[in-house]
Amino acid sequence: MTAADVDGFWAIIPTPAKEGADRWDATDTVDVDETARAIEDLIAKGVNGILTMGTLGEASTLTWPEKQAFMTAAVETARGRVPIFVGTSTLNTRDTIEQTRWASDLGADGTMLGPPFWCQASMDMAVQYFKDVAQACPDMAIAIYANMQAFKFAFSIPFWARVSQIPQVITAKLPPTPQMSAMKLVSGGRIRFMPIDNEYASVARSDPEFFSAFWSSSASCGPDVCIALRDRVIEAKKTGDWSAVTRLSDAMELAVAPLFPAGGPPEFATYNIILEKHRMNVAGWIKAGPTRAPYNHAPPHILEGAEKSGAAWAKLNKDVLAGNI
Amino acid sequence: MTAADVDGFWAIIPTPAKEGADRWDATDTVDVDETARAIEDLIAKGVNGILTMGTLGEASTLTWPEKQAFMTAAVETARGRVPIFVGTSTLNTRDTIEQTRWASDLGADGTMLGPPFWCQASMDMAVQYFKDVAQACPDMAIAIYANMQAFKFAFSIPFWARVSQIPQVITAKLPPTPQMSAMKLVSGGRIRFMPIDNEYASVARSDPEFFSAFWSSSASCGPDVCIALRDRVIEAKKTGDWSAVTRLSDAMELAVAPLFPAGGPPEFATYNIILEKHRMNVAGWIKAGPTRAPYNHAPPHILEGAEKSGAAWAKLNKDVLAGNI
Amino acid sequence: MTAADVDGFWAIIPTPAKEGADRWDATDTVDVDETARAIEDLIAKGVNGILTMGTLGEASTLTWPEKQAFMTAAVETARGRVPIFVGTSTLNTRDTIEQTRWASDLGADGTMLGPPFWCQASMDMAVQYFKDVAQACPDMAIAIYANMQAFKFAFSIPFWARVSQIPQVITAKLPPTPQMSAMKLVSGGRIRFMPIDNEYASVARSDPEFFSAFWSSSASCGPDVCIALRDRVIEAKKTGDWSAVTRLSDAMELAVAPLFPAGGPPEFATYNIILEKHRMNVAGWIKAGPTRAPYNHAPPHILEGAEKSGAAWAKLNKDVLAGNI
Amino acid sequence: MTAADVDGFWAIIPTPAKEGADRWDATDTVDVDETARAIEDLIAKGVNGILTMGTLGEASTLTWPEKQAFMTAAVETARGRVPIFVGTSTLNTRDTIEQTRWASDLGADGTMLGPPFWCQASMDMAVQYFKDVAQACPDMAIAIYANMQAFKFAFSIPFWARVSQIPQVITAKLPPTPQMSAMKLVSGGRIRFMPIDNEYASVARSDPEFFSAFWSSSASCGPDVCIALRDRVIEAKKTGDWSAVTRLSDAMELAVAPLFPAGGPPEFATYNIILEKHRMNVAGWIKAGPTRAPYNHAPPHILEGAEKSGAAWAKLNKDVLAGNI
Repeated sequence: MTAADVDGFWAIIPTPAKEGADRWDATDTVDVDETARAIEDLIAKGVNGILTMGTLGEASTLTWPEKQAFMTAAVETARGRVPIFVGTSTLNTRDTIEQTRWASDLGADGTMLGPPFWCQASMDMAVQYFKDVAQACPDMAIAIYANMQAFKFAFSIPFWARVSQIPQVITAKLPPTPQMSAMKLVSGGRIRFMPIDNEYASVARSDPEFFSAFWSSSASCGPDVCIALRDRVIEAKKTGDWSAVTRLSDAMELAVAPLFPAGGPPEFATYNIILEKHRMNVAGWIKAGPTRAPYNHAPPHILEGAEKSGAAWAKLNKDVLAGNI
Repeated sequence: MTAADVDGFWAIIPTPAKEGADRWDATDTVDVDETARAIEDLIAKGVNGILTMGTLGEASTLTWPEKQAFMTAAVETARGRVPIFVGTSTLNTRDTIEQTRWASDLGADGTMLGPPFWCQASMDMAVQYFKDVAQACPDMAIAIYANMQAFKFAFSIPFWARVSQIPQVITAKLPPTPQMSAMKLVSGGRIRFMPIDNEYASVARSDPEFFSAFWSSSASCGPDVCIALRDRVIEAKKTGDWSAVTRLSDAMELAVAPLFPAGGPPEFATYNIILEKHRMNVAGWIKAGPTRAPYNHAPPHILEGAEKSGAAWAKLNKDVLAGNI
Repeated sequence: MTAADVDGFWAIIPTPAKEGADRWDATDTVDVDETARAIEDLIAKGVNGILTMGTLGEASTLTWPEKQAFMTAAVETARGRVPIFVGTSTLNTRDTIEQTRWASDLGADGTMLGPPFWCQASMDMAVQYFKDVAQACPDMAIAIYANMQAFKFAFSIPFWARVSQIPQVITAKLPPTPQMSAMKLVSGGRIRFMPIDNEYASVARSDPEFFSAFWSSSASCGPDVCIALRDRVIEAKKTGDWSAVTRLSDAMELAVAPLFPAGGPPEFATYNIILEKHRMNVAGWIKAGPTRAPYNHAPPHILEGAEKSGAAWAKLNKDVLAGNI
Repeated sequence: MTAADVDGFWAIIPTPAKEGADRWDATDTVDVDETARAIEDLIAKGVNGILTMGTLGEASTLTWPEKQAFMTAAVETARGRVPIFVGTSTLNTRDTIEQTRWASDLGADGTMLGPPFWCQASMDMAVQYFKDVAQACPDMAIAIYANMQAFKFAFSIPFWARVSQIPQVITAKLPPTPQMSAMKLVSGGRIRFMPIDNEYASVARSDPEFFSAFWSSSASCGPDVCIALRDRVIEAKKTGDWSAVTRLSDAMELAVAPLFPAGGPPEFATYNIILEKHRMNVAGWIKAGPTRAPYNHAPPHILEGAEKSGAAWAKLNKDVLAGNI
């Protein structure tokens, strides 16, 4: 794969969990049937790619056998119809290589990968880490997982210049990020940066030739919104009329806003997994199930926002399907 | 074990690495012979306890088979003569429990354990995590590993009040920390807090009845300094004359100072492992060997301080043995 | 003024300093002649507005009589031909009101104003502060000065929703910022957000109807680049061809990049004033002069980047004038 | 003054405010009568020194004429019977010198002074700032005001080594701080570091020859507690029996604990002034009055802790006077 193969709507899905998965003595917690069902449904609707096993995908809390069970279900369901990116972030280079090779042998297309973070990585350490994984796993594409809170890492402009020299680094899953034109410039266009869904309208319009893909975890509250967004952007690029894109994007923004607690990014980072899975469970498209220990409880006032957001997105998804927006 | 069993000088040792351990394709990197030799020497000198597999012990970069090899060597060498605390911090409750149970079955006495940190833990999450591990591993003592940089956690006064309710939490490995009398107060004296070696003189003198143990990673540059410190404190508690303690403690402070780079705690946290192993290799008491990926390189100006510090401690150790201080 | 009056290219200028202004016993340090000359030249070239007395404008280090001297020179030179925004950020509400009223009486059009920061402000405190100043100074427009490092404040999406209810808050001087479409949405379009010059191309293209103004401190290294940028954007909005904009914007990015030291945003924040004034002095368009105490010295390796950047921008300015880009 | 002159109990008092002082249009807000009464009462009770115009003393929110009114009342009341330290922290070197000289001419003994903080100071900048002020104001002693949150500064061990070379730097107002023995070591004993009241017992016991002074803002909820603490420490140094000190210190700890909100140090830093003045108003020893804009409002749940703490300290003060502890 190259950056040119990263296009359109990339869904982020959770790792569905069976009842009781939140207990410390739980084993074999992956709901592989729901995993397969969700991926099949996404492909049927026309998703372009699937990202898994990031933060909300519980890379941190799955056991290795569970990761294997999930990856197997995902890759065997997709059967090459869309790219499947697994997540193989661990605490060190060698464990990541072992897991990435296993995924590569299974047939996964790529890995969404963050830098090591027990000790905050220097830029040299982070770049070398990605180089080592790329060298050890030549058949795997790499999506840089640019989560500053989790990985204690700044993902500065010079960082992108350096990792863009690694051929397998073809994309990056970005939080809302400024200076994306500078990032494109220094990386020579070799990395297809993916903004979040509700930033995609602005980013795509700012540079329609280059920014042609986005990620969405809200998609797991209802993927039709994202299909519509993708298709409206394609149409707007042709016609120059972005009004239908902006209308939808603004509605997405309002549906997502309640998800974020008053404490700002640090508080969201603490409750990220439970907030995301909770809103998905409320929205009803996927049975995300409970969250695994230790990220398995949150104060009620934190969860209220997730409920509002899940319900709002589910309604937006219906409105999109009904042609009401 | 109870807090009363935590006493005297607790050495922190690295996980000795064979040549080539810094490569991404290295396997079986633990130098078990050097592990056994170092532990045997510490016991011969009269160490009171041994802490392992924290940050500089490369908890983050050892593979699970390597952790098993190291723990086996450590526990089998000690044979119950001094308590061995392993380190079983992982990214989640279940993996930590699996590793802790394995260590417990092996005969380890306790685990030095930090809270989960992919998502910064809330206080509730952290406390529940320690409760779950304690419940699952009833024979293991727990030393709270209070590393704010690694675990993104504040270790506030109220936190200590709460974890002191868990009977297995009997000690804590602290960085230089203020408010230790408040921590003792809220934890009802059930946690024997261990300060770092060069803070021990002040802390012990401030409350001689309670603060009777300290940890030292500098011990792996020469343990005789720490034996002398422990014994001089015992003597000073009897005589009321702390001058020989202060003289030694001040010398320790000056030997350690060059280890810390100009960038302050964040820069030290990035290069922690390589700085510590490098100064140990320079000092010569233990063959710490290379550091494992990805924490296997640092700019030369960073390493200079480690060299100075290692040489200074080795000299101090000689001076102590020669009775020159 | 309303948001509709904020348009085009807004230059940020330093407070030119006489020889010796860096001494702690300096008095009357403002070079009013150079102030007048620079403003006259900017107006002659067609600048749309002028922002002053922010961080690089040394709001923190000017005495009150010096602020008065500078404001007088600026307002009397402009004579209403372009809006002049002074800076009246102080440590508290009442001092800010006193300075803002003085500026209002002088004839200044607005103030570029950050929230109070001895104690990090809560959102309620910050919003009330802007309300109080607006109420006390009804003739002054307010540009929110969104400097997170200086003011220890997050400038979150909900903040913009709240300050947009204050009629006098018509614009904001933003660092590179994501989520600008969300900020526009929640503020109802009542705040004309100004991005930095080298972000303007993307931001303007992402929403050409709304984002029609930018700020530039690089303008004080050569304002013709910014005039060209503004005019090319106007042209691109008509033709739909953004290639000449992107070409210029990319060149600006490369000229500015060396200004930022390796330590990232915190290091830039420490040396902000001296870096900016040094590159201006090197570029030669304005005699910025020395920086005032205590921000009057920096290590040589920090200043090297400023020299490169100043020279690069000066060259770019020549290339623009010569039609070479 | 030298470090040897810094001894015993140093009270921190607020700047008493008249009714209406919280309004943005308030003027002349200092309650000079209450200022004089409080200082007179402290001197009558035997205070050793008085620190003013720090954070809770509203250095940030007083106008310059108000600072002059307060300083005049304080210095004229004390009439040299105890040292009065004013606070002259401003945003820059020259304003600080102007205010410090004014205070020196008035007869103040010293200034409690923090480094500049609009731009976070480098260590060089901070050290030079203290040097400049010392040179310009040769008759003023300097207490380094080590507030990390307000001044964005780390106050590292090497910093203390450097400022200890400035003869006028004789003391420092410290938050709970580790590594005080290292700070003493590198500063050659030339700075009498003052810990907070409820840390004083441990610190004094850890090094009875050196640590002989503490500061207390709780003193403004009832100073008799602090007089008793000071005198019990003096007694314990003679007898070697610290039990009465520890008993009182633990009671102080429990009385102060509710003051700190759940959000930790950042949340305390935001509401510092209002929390402190609110508990003083509840405790009733001083009429602290309202807080000045913009730090004049806090959510009720934040204030509850201050109420508990104020009441608890007032009760402790009664218990001390009644000989019940």
